[in-house]
Amino acid sequence: MEGGCCGHGLRLDGPVRDDARRRLLSVKGHVEGILRMLEDDTVYCVDVLKQLKAVDGALGKVGNLVLQSHLRHHVVTAHERGDEDRIVAELMEILKYR
Amino acid sequence: MEGGCCGHGLRLDGPVRDDARRRLLSVKGHVEGILRMLEDDTVYCVDVLKQLKAVDGALGKVGNLVLQSHLRHHVVTAHERGDEDRIVAELMEILKYR
Amino acid sequence: MEGGCCGHGLRLDGPVRDDARRRLLSVKGHVEGILRMLEDDTVYCVDVLKQLKAVDGALGKVGNLVLQSHLRHHVVTAHERGDEDRIVAELMEILKYR
Amino acid sequence: MEGGCCGHGLRLDGPVRDDARRRLLSVKGHVEGILRMLEDDTVYCVDVLKQLKAVDGALGKVGNLVLQSHLRHHVVTAHERGDEDRIVAELMEILKYR
Repeated sequence: MEGGCCGHGLRLDGPVRDDARRRLLSVKGHVEGILRMLEDDTVYCVDVLKQLKAVDGALGKVGNLVLQSHLRHHVVTAHERGDEDRIVAELMEILKYR
Repeated sequence: MEGGCCGHGLRLDGPVRDDARRRLLSVKGHVEGILRMLEDDTVYCVDVLKQLKAVDGALGKVGNLVLQSHLRHHVVTAHERGDEDRIVAELMEILKYR
Repeated sequence: MEGGCCGHGLRLDGPVRDDARRRLLSVKGHVEGILRMLEDDTVYCVDVLKQLKAVDGALGKVGNLVLQSHLRHHVVTAHERGDEDRIVAELMEILKYR
Repeated sequence: MEGGCCGHGLRLDGPVRDDARRRLLSVKGHVEGILRMLEDDTVYCVDVLKQLKAVDGALGKVGNLVLQSHLRHHVVTAHERGDEDRIVAELMEILKYR
């Protein structure tokens, strides 16, 4: 898991980064809550599945934020910068259906 | 986020619970890693999106474990117990496509 | 694509089969509509993507119907029949997250 | 289901359109195959679910093609054209997680 990087100088927008961080902190708290549920030896499978689904939804929303910011700040300007091949390849890697 | 519960006495299988816990601890560590990435103001959107996708995959695997255990231990015996309406309704709520 | 089959005698419930057929006929019509869109050399990518997403949603609903029927009629009785290993393995193959 | 359109003059790339059409014709054939399966009153739920999943995968691949073409030909140049707000909003509508 590398940070920043890469010489291309493209960075996640500051306010979006802050928002993503806040939401991920809440995701982390949610995961900790599921971990506590799992200490209870009477926990019911479906209650765990529901919580996993909720965490998945929250992660998806963080992804939406970051994706939208990336589209706005880096993808729509890729042709001007001349790095569109890399930008499109990276994005397809993330977005592609299987 | 309620624990165990519900009077129906159906419980997540012990070894599966342990496995789910181990995997969720690793998910939590992964989320903490993304939180650290997000402290770096040069972090690149796509690196964050890749990590979010990896966490999503790991969560999905925890879900698979719990789902399989639920099918094996509770769903295939629902008609014998007589709670098949509840069991099917709960499962569809989790599994349904939108 | 094999039909019916398999010696286990488990069959898709008649009314559900009819409903699935009606919905799939509509999916087929929708696909034909996209094929017509694609004959127009001014068609816009996003209009195609929206229609593909709509078809995907319609297919998902057919899947929900068939899945619910399978759960109700075959999965909850699997232990009584003694074929629960097969039933669970088949279902996980379809439902599992990657 | 509107064709082309919209005054913005952005069009799905010709060869991609042809490829999408070929693949959608195959999807249509696949759907017709499932319709034939559903005429058989001994058809097994899981066989239908498997075929629906296969169609879903094939549709997803058509979507990948069209999406990649849209990124390459329209999204990376949006800032130059000045329609980036619309382009990003449209794309998020399609790509967003729920």
